[in-house]
Amino acid sequence: MQKVGFIGLGLMGGPMAANVVRAGLPLTVYNRTADKAEPLKKLGAAVAASPKEVAQNSETIITMLSDATAVETVLKGDDGVLAGAAAGLVLIDMSTVAPDQSQAIGAMLAEHDIKMLDAPVGGSTGPATEGTLSIVVGGDEAVFEAQKELLGVMGKDVFYLGPQGSGATMKMAFNLIVAAQMMSLAEAMLLAIKGGVSARVAGEILAGRNFSSGLIRRKVQNIVNADYTPAFPLKHMQKDLGLMVRTGDRLGVTLPATSATHQIFTAAKTRGHEDEDFAAVFSLLAEMAGLE
Amino acid sequence: MQKVGFIGLGLMGGPMAANVVRAGLPLTVYNRTADKAEPLKKLGAAVAASPKEVAQNSETIITMLSDATAVETVLKGDDGVLAGAAAGLVLIDMSTVAPDQSQAIGAMLAEHDIKMLDAPVGGSTGPATEGTLSIVVGGDEAVFEAQKELLGVMGKDVFYLGPQGSGATMKMAFNLIVAAQMMSLAEAMLLAIKGGVSARVAGEILAGRNFSSGLIRRKVQNIVNADYTPAFPLKHMQKDLGLMVRTGDRLGVTLPATSATHQIFTAAKTRGHEDEDFAAVFSLLAEMAGLE
Amino acid sequence: MQKVGFIGLGLMGGPMAANVVRAGLPLTVYNRTADKAEPLKKLGAAVAASPKEVAQNSETIITMLSDATAVETVLKGDDGVLAGAAAGLVLIDMSTVAPDQSQAIGAMLAEHDIKMLDAPVGGSTGPATEGTLSIVVGGDEAVFEAQKELLGVMGKDVFYLGPQGSGATMKMAFNLIVAAQMMSLAEAMLLAIKGGVSARVAGEILAGRNFSSGLIRRKVQNIVNADYTPAFPLKHMQKDLGLMVRTGDRLGVTLPATSATHQIFTAAKTRGHEDEDFAAVFSLLAEMAGLE
Amino acid sequence: MQKVGFIGLGLMGGPMAANVVRAGLPLTVYNRTADKAEPLKKLGAAVAASPKEVAQNSETIITMLSDATAVETVLKGDDGVLAGAAAGLVLIDMSTVAPDQSQAIGAMLAEHDIKMLDAPVGGSTGPATEGTLSIVVGGDEAVFEAQKELLGVMGKDVFYLGPQGSGATMKMAFNLIVAAQMMSLAEAMLLAIKGGVSARVAGEILAGRNFSSGLIRRKVQNIVNADYTPAFPLKHMQKDLGLMVRTGDRLGVTLPATSATHQIFTAAKTRGHEDEDFAAVFSLLAEMAGLE
Repeated sequence: MQKVGFIGLGLMGGPMAANVVRAGLPLTVYNRTADKAEPLKKLGAAVAASPKEVAQNSETIITMLSDATAVETVLKGDDGVLAGAAAGLVLIDMSTVAPDQSQAIGAMLAEHDIKMLDAPVGGSTGPATEGTLSIVVGGDEAVFEAQKELLGVMGKDVFYLGPQGSGATMKMAFNLIVAAQMMSLAEAMLLAIKGGVSARVAGEILAGRNFSSGLIRRKVQNIVNADYTPAFPLKHMQKDLGLMVRTGDRLGVTLPATSATHQIFTAAKTRGHEDEDFAAVFSLLAEMAGLE
Repeated sequence: MQKVGFIGLGLMGGPMAANVVRAGLPLTVYNRTADKAEPLKKLGAAVAASPKEVAQNSETIITMLSDATAVETVLKGDDGVLAGAAAGLVLIDMSTVAPDQSQAIGAMLAEHDIKMLDAPVGGSTGPATEGTLSIVVGGDEAVFEAQKELLGVMGKDVFYLGPQGSGATMKMAFNLIVAAQMMSLAEAMLLAIKGGVSARVAGEILAGRNFSSGLIRRKVQNIVNADYTPAFPLKHMQKDLGLMVRTGDRLGVTLPATSATHQIFTAAKTRGHEDEDFAAVFSLLAEMAGLE
Repeated sequence: MQKVGFIGLGLMGGPMAANVVRAGLPLTVYNRTADKAEPLKKLGAAVAASPKEVAQNSETIITMLSDATAVETVLKGDDGVLAGAAAGLVLIDMSTVAPDQSQAIGAMLAEHDIKMLDAPVGGSTGPATEGTLSIVVGGDEAVFEAQKELLGVMGKDVFYLGPQGSGATMKMAFNLIVAAQMMSLAEAMLLAIKGGVSARVAGEILAGRNFSSGLIRRKVQNIVNADYTPAFPLKHMQKDLGLMVRTGDRLGVTLPATSATHQIFTAAKTRGHEDEDFAAVFSLLAEMAGLE
Repeated sequence: MQKVGFIGLGLMGGPMAANVVRAGLPLTVYNRTADKAEPLKKLGAAVAASPKEVAQNSETIITMLSDATAVETVLKGDDGVLAGAAAGLVLIDMSTVAPDQSQAIGAMLAEHDIKMLDAPVGGSTGPATEGTLSIVVGGDEAVFEAQKELLGVMGKDVFYLGPQGSGATMKMAFNLIVAAQMMSLAEAMLLAIKGGVSARVAGEILAGRNFSSGLIRRKVQNIVNADYTPAFPLKHMQKDLGLMVRTGDRLGVTLPATSATHQIFTAAKTRGHEDEDFAAVFSLLAEMAGLE
């Protein structure tokens, strides 16, 4: 049986790793703050003291970290994955990073004879727990085929897209639409509210239209109830918007609405909404509209 | 039985008027280009030679026109509605106009003892034909109650929102989200395509996510098939985006993403996409990304 | 000698009218709030009780009002200019209005055999007082030639640009650049300040470069001293930005940076900076950057 | 006498290095494409075969390169500056890079006991040739004092701003205003032209106002003559706009107008204007306005 390592046991990584161990695969985990590894230990995972130790005990390592710098940090250094990796190791990075960042990491790993897939996910904590994430994968197709079953443990829809970086690109596309729906919902609600319609009535109407995705129906609730308990923290969306703008710049794609949205999320993060749900961009726009 | 008039028999107004006559109500219709009245005539409607004549034969008049100027034109002048209206007439304007435009028309009508509801619709030609539009209504509540049954002939969901102009405001909120979804889909598809993912694969993936509304699923097809047969012509969305910006300015709501989208639709309209479906904003952005 | 009327004696109109009477021309003035006419009375102008009375005593009438609605108000009604005007009257509108608004007024006046020039100005209260404004004029060239000397009393540079509306168009172009310089100065100062450079030092450096216009040198002082005494109130620039966006929409010119600036000025106006100098857009952006 | 090295002899670096050698300082130069070193050789500079060789012959090295990656490339590797540098070497990076990029390079150099100043410049090829650049410097103040005379050979105004990275920050502020002036000039000219005013007349008027900086007066000529011979290539401004957006994101400064401008420059670069002067952003906007 395939020996798996998992680095990064946060809001998303924790339940994803749990699904790996529940599937009966031998799992070694590592997290910078060790207490997050406790639930996995109870499920039967081995807890390593360093990324290096994860590498010494794994054929495949999954990383689910906050950004590209965090990924590089667990790879490099005396305690890093590279210090413990045997040639032939496969690294599956499921973090959200820009395609060029993913490709740079892949090139660096190739020098150490390590194969890499970029396999970021669509979906938040709910699907992560249920193992029903969407997973979009870039990298060598043979490597993907060999890892498909493992990925299927975490996700319902697993798509192979092409060369390394393709998964990261598709994740940008996902989050671009998610951010735009949130932003447009906030702008639309404010027009309605300042135009004299109550938030509750406007919310009900906007939640039942042809344009009302599952996402919109949930986010309407955040606004109407002024409840910004984080399902996806605003600071993460702000980071992702920065990655989209960076990717558009590099690929030569003009992103006028996304970049306008990026700027507003930067203001929302700066003005204290960083740890709230990204629906709190409504609060920032409401403030700019003189409402709060 | 309530005698009804209908002015404006275009892509939307035609099927809406047909539903009125099919419901068994005595209907008099008028359209600037007369041949569009033919199908209604066949269904049993009387065809008037002028808006004035419609007014002489109606207790309630519905207008479904391209903009506020068109509404004012059918009201004023020697052949206009006002020239033929008896006091107590009710005008239901279902066109998409800005709230302040609607209120100005309402104030003008009030001077002639004519009551007004603003009752714009959500949905395009399909729901108009099936009588399943969403209708959002502003105006005096007693007037609304008296017209509710008539509105129910054209729409499935009929919402009363408050004072005159509230319906127009809500319609701004609808179209704001529709425009944002189209714009974000175009930006996301271009990131994917220029990042190396095929349009067909990207389209399939984007159509099956939590953020994939019915609208997005349909618009993905427009892009993937490069088919811009107009369900909702781009020039109308460009006009509506201008109305949203105008309304945000007047109400003191900042609309950063919507105004960025407005500018791109202006370019798309100017560069020859005005009569295509509004999904053709993809073509304009593709061109700016060096793809066409 | 040409009998002149002047309607609108505000921050700009007052000193402009004063230059007309100082040039020895017989002048009749009107202002909605009568006390603003006092200084002109002292200089020798006649004070009329209504726009109609101005018209009865003038061959040429100058209007300098806050917007197109204000211009229409002084023209129409029982006490309006039209009620007192003889055929052949020339109206010179020096207000800042959109080109299509100016053309609509011109068309309406033409029905009453009144000629119109649109002749908005560049420059604020200083040049208005000194008679050194820039004046950009649209309308019939023969009418312009006949009024050139009168315009020369108020401005140093008087440009004839073409058909009616051309002056209004050029004024849009002026204010577009003015707004952009203010916005960019605010953004640049905030980058410097949050990057660790003191406001005073950053201001000094930015005021002495190749890109440092007279306008920038003055506006740097507003920011460094946090002094927003209005030379040009922010609410007026917000209105003008709205007119630019409207004009771009109508002419098919995409204005991505201007429309982004418009949205921020709307927020600044809404959050209480409306009567401060338009340099106070810095305050709004500083707030969004967590500084105030 | 201070032994100086100069790496990067492009459009800017060439004339800057020439001023160093003309000032009588012993100079060793290096450029990736060797022929650009010829003019310096004629002036008396030694030409090195590698950055390493420059380091072996210099106490202070100036770098003037296209971006942060290029700077890192000449520092690292077997032939790099670090391979030849003695402890105590001072590196003055005059390239335009983001503050965080500059600080990262500085931190890396500090590990090798090399001091760094970031000292980017304001001004293009003209002032570079005349030695009248503006130079904005960050780093240790004592190091700055020791290098002030050398910097004075290249620039007229030399400003010390604070810790390492401050110069880079100020350069962002410079170019932000430059880009905004160019963008607003393009938008304003298009409003005027599509509103019926000739480009030549509009250009003359816009060049003579209170907001008309030296920069605007020059760029008007580019547009009126449709001459986009590069003084500052558009692709460089596009890169710099990306750095500004990155810096705003990192510092928490919202930059709505700059980010809108960034997106348009990306389109202009993508559609073939990359090697033209950055005034060619007018061509892109003209195209979007249906003019080209």
